[in-house]
Amino acid sequence: MPLDGHLIEVQRTSAEVYRGKFLTAFKDAVELPDGTMAVREYVVHPGAAMVIPILEDENGNLRLVLERQFRYPMGRTMLEFPAGKLDPGESPFDCAQRELQEETGYTAQEWARAGVIHPVISYSTEFIEIWIARKLVAGGRQLDAGESLDVLTVTPAELMTWCLDGTVTDAKTICGSLWLQSLFNGSWKPSWQSTR
Amino acid sequence: MPLDGHLIEVQRTSAEVYRGKFLTAFKDAVELPDGTMAVREYVVHPGAAMVIPILEDENGNLRLVLERQFRYPMGRTMLEFPAGKLDPGESPFDCAQRELQEETGYTAQEWARAGVIHPVISYSTEFIEIWIARKLVAGGRQLDAGESLDVLTVTPAELMTWCLDGTVTDAKTICGSLWLQSLFNGSWKPSWQSTR
Repeated sequence: MPLDGHLIEVQRTSAEVYRGKFLTAFKDAVELPDGTMAVREYVVHPGAAMVIPILEDENGNLRLVLERQFRYPMGRTMLEFPAGKLDPGESPFDCAQRELQEETGYTAQEWARAGVIHPVISYSTEFIEIWIARKLVAGGRQLDAGESLDVLTVTPAELMTWCLDGTVTDAKTICGSLWLQSLFNGSWKPSWQSTR
Repeated sequence: MPLDGHLIEVQRTSAEVYRGKFLTAFKDAVELPDGTMAVREYVVHPGAAMVIPILEDENGNLRLVLERQFRYPMGRTMLEFPAGKLDPGESPFDCAQRELQEETGYTAQEWARAGVIHPVISYSTEFIEIWIARKLVAGGRQLDAGESLDVLTVTPAELMTWCLDGTVTDAKTICGSLWLQSLFNGSWKPSWQSTR
């Protein structure tokens, strides 16, 4: 029995209960460790990628690229790092490069993978792979039809303040800030790779 | 027009498309800033509270209380801080105290509110209010029927390493670690309140 065998739930039945334009939901019957049965409902998600874009000016001062976007379930605009869902067959790294370019116009010459996070472990299969991008080159953005978002830049200190004071509440962006803080204080050493 | 008026989406119709045991989903028609229509699907969630429980031994060494719990949509056990959904009419602070006691057996004599995060801004209304708890007193836990989870303790340094190396991928727990790091490095000053 594995270390956590006393915790494992086993699928007995699975049924798709909703298939919409974006959301697909399942309702499964599972057997609990004590032998009783329970229901698990969850959203199936293709996964996503998020980019932490770092701009450096001629004096070595750093700024981060953020977006302000209306998020309908929140009923308001939110500040967040660029991110998006994987297209079918797309790798998280390819998705990260595509979303950065489409939403902000920037392309990056150097990339480092930070890690992966799971935003909704109780009711969605979603993962978000986080990439850091530097040596940015500005270009034209290509928003999807009907997509509206503002692009802005902030200092790392501003972002950290905003994560703690409630100005930024998006979980993926706050998670990204932990990697950023660890990058700046030297406790995390990224492996940079060039795209050229 | 507000600062972000050019980003706002306006609800035109709203319909409940799924009501299960735990999940409720809606599908709305919205008018986009450019006047075209779009579909927004999302889960309605009551909100949740998460607790960062800090243990201090007689030498002043700190340990954090974590849980290991099977998370069905992930297909595996996850390491996470204690958390749970608000009961109807329950405040996040009451929920934090209840979940800590039910899941770990600990009660805390001092609490500080860290902030609120939104884990799924594109398809759920969920918020998680994060509280820090210290001066813990051990007691008996009271798990819900069918609930199984292990309680463990780690050092702050172990947790930080695990957030960066992929051992911990739960987003709410990684967000909590940013507040912890800011508490320990002095950049965040919590307002402690006593429960007695």
